[in-house]
This record gives sequence, structure tokens and C-alpha cells, in this order.
Amino acid sequence: MRDTYLVGAGQSDYGAFPEKSYRSLFRTAFEAATESVPNGIDGDDIDETFIGNLGVGGRQLGLSGPAVTEHVGLGGIPCTRVENACAASGFATRQAVQAVKSGMADVVLAGGFEIMSDMSSDATKYWLGVSGETEWERLSGTTFSGVYAQMASVHMERYGTTREHLSRVAVKNHSNGAKNPHAQLGFECSLEDAQSAPVVADPLNLYHCCPTSDGAACALIVSEDVVDDYTDDPIRIAGVGAGSDSVGLYQRDTYTGVPASQQAAESAYEMANVGPDNLDFAEVHDCFAIAELLAYEDLGFCERGEAGNLIESGATKLGGNLPVNTSGGLKSKGHPIGATGAGQVVEVFKQLSGEAGERQVENPTRGLTHNVGGSGGAAVVHVFEKEAEVSA
Amino acid sequence: MRDTYLVGAGQSDYGAFPEKSYRSLFRTAFEAATESVPNGIDGDDIDETFIGNLGVGGRQLGLSGPAVTEHVGLGGIPCTRVENACAASGFATRQAVQAVKSGMADVVLAGGFEIMSDMSSDATKYWLGVSGETEWERLSGTTFSGVYAQMASVHMERYGTTREHLSRVAVKNHSNGAKNPHAQLGFECSLEDAQSAPVVADPLNLYHCCPTSDGAACALIVSEDVVDDYTDDPIRIAGVGAGSDSVGLYQRDTYTGVPASQQAAESAYEMANVGPDNLDFAEVHDCFAIAELLAYEDLGFCERGEAGNLIESGATKLGGNLPVNTSGGLKSKGHPIGATGAGQVVEVFKQLSGEAGERQVENPTRGLTHNVGGSGGAAVVHVFEKEAEVSA
Repeated sequence: MRDTYLVGAGQSDYGAFPEKSYRSLFRTAFEAATESVPNGIDGDDIDETFIGNLGVGGRQLGLSGPAVTEHVGLGGIPCTRVENACAASGFATRQAVQAVKSGMADVVLAGGFEIMSDMSSDATKYWLGVSGETEWERLSGTTFSGVYAQMASVHMERYGTTREHLSRVAVKNHSNGAKNPHAQLGFECSLEDAQSAPVVADPLNLYHCCPTSDGAACALIVSEDVVDDYTDDPIRIAGVGAGSDSVGLYQRDTYTGVPASQQAAESAYEMANVGPDNLDFAEVHDCFAIAELLAYEDLGFCERGEAGNLIESGATKLGGNLPVNTSGGLKSKGHPIGATGAGQVVEVFKQLSGEAGERQVENPTRGLTHNVGGSGGAAVVHVFEKEAEVSA
Repeated sequence: MRDTYLVGAGQSDYGAFPEKSYRSLFRTAFEAATESVPNGIDGDDIDETFIGNLGVGGRQLGLSGPAVTEHVGLGGIPCTRVENACAASGFATRQAVQAVKSGMADVVLAGGFEIMSDMSSDATKYWLGVSGETEWERLSGTTFSGVYAQMASVHMERYGTTREHLSRVAVKNHSNGAKNPHAQLGFECSLEDAQSAPVVADPLNLYHCCPTSDGAACALIVSEDVVDDYTDDPIRIAGVGAGSDSVGLYQRDTYTGVPASQQAAESAYEMANVGPDNLDFAEVHDCFAIAELLAYEDLGFCERGEAGNLIESGATKLGGNLPVNTSGGLKSKGHPIGATGAGQVVEVFKQLSGEAGERQVENPTRGLTHNVGGSGGAAVVHVFEKEAEVSA
């Protein structure tokens, strides 16, 4: 298998941008990604594109990939839209890796976008339900926050996880997001704020839920044969893993873990020949605070049932042993569904390039991204590492 | 690059099946595909899946891939939904090839499904518009048949293509479809029938338009390392090509050709090291009669402007020099959007396996599939060949 490398990544701001089109947001991300490539890149170098998009806000529901890539001058080359709900562009990133490893492409763009702010709150609730199972969840009135609330309730009951543990996820991620100029909710919140917010779906309150967001993100992935053209400091995509599962939570054997995440992590660690102990930081899928706690356990950052203790220990804060969601995560940076997975790759690129500003992790060598579709119908994990550091 | 092989393919009937679920249709196709593998295959052998679906009829709008794969016992393994409008499962097939060539998988399922019959005619018109451009086509009232009618008008005006040429596509494809037990409109039609049908979008009449369909199709694609486990008569996927373009017809330089198809064909022929003269049959994207005529020219079956003469010559009939759409094509076999590309692969598998019954091409060695998204925002072409024949 050919080695694959991340040579650039960039994103738009995340937020509510009623004055912008989905194409202009994508262009902003595309330009940020191309400009981030250390030795420069030309659009003509790009052989193929994969675009993640759920189509929540309507606009271009079919062929939304070519609709944005032709806008940035990439018309003509193969473009495939990938959709696995909130993991759309995490899977687009994985497809880019496969395209390069296949030998069919040397330079591939993986990106994603979403417009969510032009819908009413009720419409958003309805549309987000499409990420859950249709007949027995969405059409039965279960909102998406309701699905995660069920997971939180069972975890709390079984392992003693508390509302304060959930709130500490919000406090940490807002603290990080306040240091990220692209963050949608780039302000700090106190534990008291997070504890006293209005209930959304008990036990989850407003601070335990990510916002709805507009935004776009792009990553540039190349083969070992051309990586030297683009950078002198290569970031290798050392591990890639994916898993799937029943779309409906009610169909699964467990409510206190996400088997698709476990499978994705296992595959990615195996390919990269590393374990969670070898990571310097991670961007995990915190659509709801409980999702970040489940990720700690599913990705092996701690034992099952210990996530509450891990967040309380401070180990996943900036400066801790394994900082998680230094970008602010979905909670504070935002969650424009189709863009989220590629946006996680943007944070990894910034951290491993030493360009994460105030939220920089000290000399990181290896970072992980973890992107979940729905409540766990699909999940994808990538491990990235700075090659020079690893081989030195 | 590792060689990839088609070892099985199967489909459900295409038609209107209000009593069936999308999951049950997919199961029918999955079972037909696994049962078609000469030496047998076990579901546990499958490493990964790619599912094409546009989501026209609602049902599971997000994560529709895992929603069907878990239903056939493939929960757990990576599943990615691919959407490029009507080319969804053509691109899913291409992703399966990339996955195998990447070395990340040895046995991959590419499939697709669509439910369209549960919508009113008006809703279908609206939904199909999502395959066109949104702001300046769909929301301006241009139906999808209207887009292709514009292409037909310009081709007729420039090259002298006639309504009779369009009708001859229908007559040929219905003649073939009448020999296909899976066809939705499996009856013959006379030239007189085809000429006198009610107008849909002038110059296209009812017989120049494919039906809306429910259905599913699956193909099984494996690596050179394991192909011998599944068949003694391997069908190699010799060429794969894809192209993209502006989604809106109005954005393109030409109305009398589909540049994405031309690019896809060029790439596929180059990879396979063949040209159109080396083909024994082809399944092309005939969503409207004009689309088949454009395909003749885009795929190099004749010169630009000569497609009318080619259909009139009878060369593309069964028994002709290059039979096209022996399955009945989208026109007679049906067009369940997300299933169509994989369904074309089913016909290729049957023909190259000598199991096409009454519509069997005599001793074919090499066949092509051509699947278009929208009016040409994306296109994908595959070339399949019986390895024994080629190397013998």
C-alpha cells in the first residue's frame, strides 16, 4: 500500500452566515487549504475530489459535490459526494486516502460543507432526525438530542457518570474554542453556566448540545510519490479505520458505547501500529457532551465507565496528558454536519504544523480524529503523525 | 495497482412495489448477487460496502447505506453512502474498485437502491429536479425532462437528428427489455406507438422518457489475491473512468454532448488499453432517448452528430455490431436512481457469464457500463472483460 500524506487543510469560520452561499463558504475553505500547503499547490494538480454533505438545509440536494468543486475551478475531474450523516467528510477523507492508495490518484481533495442556519428550529429538529433511524426513531418523535439523552441516562445509571461530568466537557471545549478564531461559540463558559442551562432532552441541557452551524472545510491528501513537492515536513496518515452499525439506537445491544467507533479505532490503531497511549491529542465527535465521554471509552483513552473520572481529572484539557478537542470541538467550534470530519483534520494539520496559536499542544507528533454518523450507524477514525519526528 | 474482478451481481425486479420496503428490495438484490458467485461466497467474506442512493422517496435520508447493509447481516464493516444523483451506484462501483486497489479490502460490495413509487407525480418532478441545478433550473421551474429536451432540441437543430431517431431508441430498448424478466416495462413497442405518444417536454414524448422505479442492485468486486476462491472464469474490471462538470446545463459550453461522459470514457479506455471498437456490448445511460444518442457520440461509438444514423442503422440492436442496452436500459428495464449503475453491472455480469437468456450477445468478451448523474454533472464508465478470452 502506498503511503498517504496530509499536506494542507483549511476551513471557513463556523457560524450562522445568512449572507453567504454554500459555494462561497466552500471557496473560503478551499482557498484556506491550498494556501496552507507549505510549498504551494496548484488547483490543476488535484486529480480527484470527495465531498461530504448531508444536505440538511436543502440547496443542492443531488450532486452537491460537483456543485461546489466546479465553483472553485475543479470542474472536469472526478468528484464523488459521500454521505454518512455527521461523518460525511470523515468518510470523504477516508475515500481520499483510498483513492491515493489505489494508485488512481496522487493528489486528492477531501472536503465538506453544510448550511443549517436557514431553517426554523422545528425544521432543524426534523432534518437532524434523518441522521437517526426513520421509522422507529424520527417518525415516532424521538429527536436527535433525545437519542443521545438515552445514552447519557444509561451511562449515568450504570457508571455513576454525573451531570457535572457532562458540563465539564462543555467548560473544557468552550475554553479551547475561545482560542480558535473560526469557532462559532468562541466564548468561555463557567461550570455554573453549564450546570444551570435550560434542559433540551433530560439529562442533556443546552450546554451539553452542539449548535447548528454553517461552514465548510477542506483537506489535501497526496501520495508518497509526490509529497516532497508540497512539503518538507510531511504528516503521514498512518492509520485509517471505519465501522458501521444499525442506524437505530434501539436496534443495538449497548447504549453505553458506540461499537462502530470501537471498530474504527481498532482498525486505525492496527494500521498505524500505535495505541491510544501514543497519541498527543485528539479531535473527537462531541455532538453532545455524552458523545465525548463515550468516545474516551470507545477510543481506549480510559476503561469503560471511567470517562467521568477522566474529564474530571483534567487529563483531556489543554496542557493535560491527552488534550481532546483543542479546536473547541463540535460544542464550541460548531458542527456544520458535512464539514465536521474535514474540519477535525484542519485542527490536526494546524497542531502538527505548530500553527494552532494560543491552543497549541506542545510539540505534538501524533493526533487522532474521530467522526461519528448519527448515533453510531457509522464511524471513522484517522491517525496522523509527523514523519520526521517518528523516524528520528 | 492490484487487478480487480467482478465475481457476482444481482438485482431485484424493477417496478412499483408499494408492498415492499427498501430494505427488502435490497435484500433481494444482495441475495441474487451472492447466489450468482460461481464458487459461492459467504457474507463474512465481505470487507467493505458502498451504497448508492439519492433518497428520492424519503425513507432513510441520512445513513441509508448502513440502514440496508446491517439488514443483510453486514453490520460492523465499513459502509459508505455514495450519491452522485443518477450515477450514485456507478460511483459506488468505482469506489469498490478503489477500495480493492488500495489494498484496504479484498472483497467489496457495491450496491444501490431507490424507492420512487410512493410519491405523487408532482412530488417526483420536484424531487427529480434535485439532480439538476437548484437555483437556476429546479427553482425556476425547469423539470428534469425539460433539461434533456433542451439537449434534444439543439442536437436536432444542429445535426438533423429526428423524432424518429429518438423513437427508435425506445423501440430497441423495449424490444430488449421484453426479454428481461426483471424489466419494469417489459413489453415491446412499435415505432408507431413510440412516435404517437403524448408529449412530456417537447420534443420528448412519453416513450422518450424512462419510468420512475423502485429497485435495488448489487455487485461483488474482489482483488486478484482472492479471485480464484470465487470463480474459475474471472471478469476483470479493466478500465474505470469518471468525470464531473457544472451541474447546471446552462453553465456548460455545449448542449450537444456530455463532457463528463467523454472524460470518463477516455480515462476508462486508457486504463483498459482498449477503444470503443473493442467492445462487444454496452449498457449506457438512457434516462431519455436523447441521452442514449449523446452517449453513442460521447463514448466514441460514432462521430459527433452521427448518433441518429447509428440508431437507424440497427448496429446497436441485439445482433448488431455493438448491441446497446441489451437489458432494456433505463427506458424499459427501469431507473430506480440509486440502483441504476449497479444494475448496469448486473447486465454485464449476465452477458459475460453467458446467462442473459433470450437477450444473450454471442460470446462476448468485453462490455462497458456508462452511468450519468443529473444532466452530466458527473459520469462514470467501466470496462469489463473476460480474462480467459483476452489472454487466450
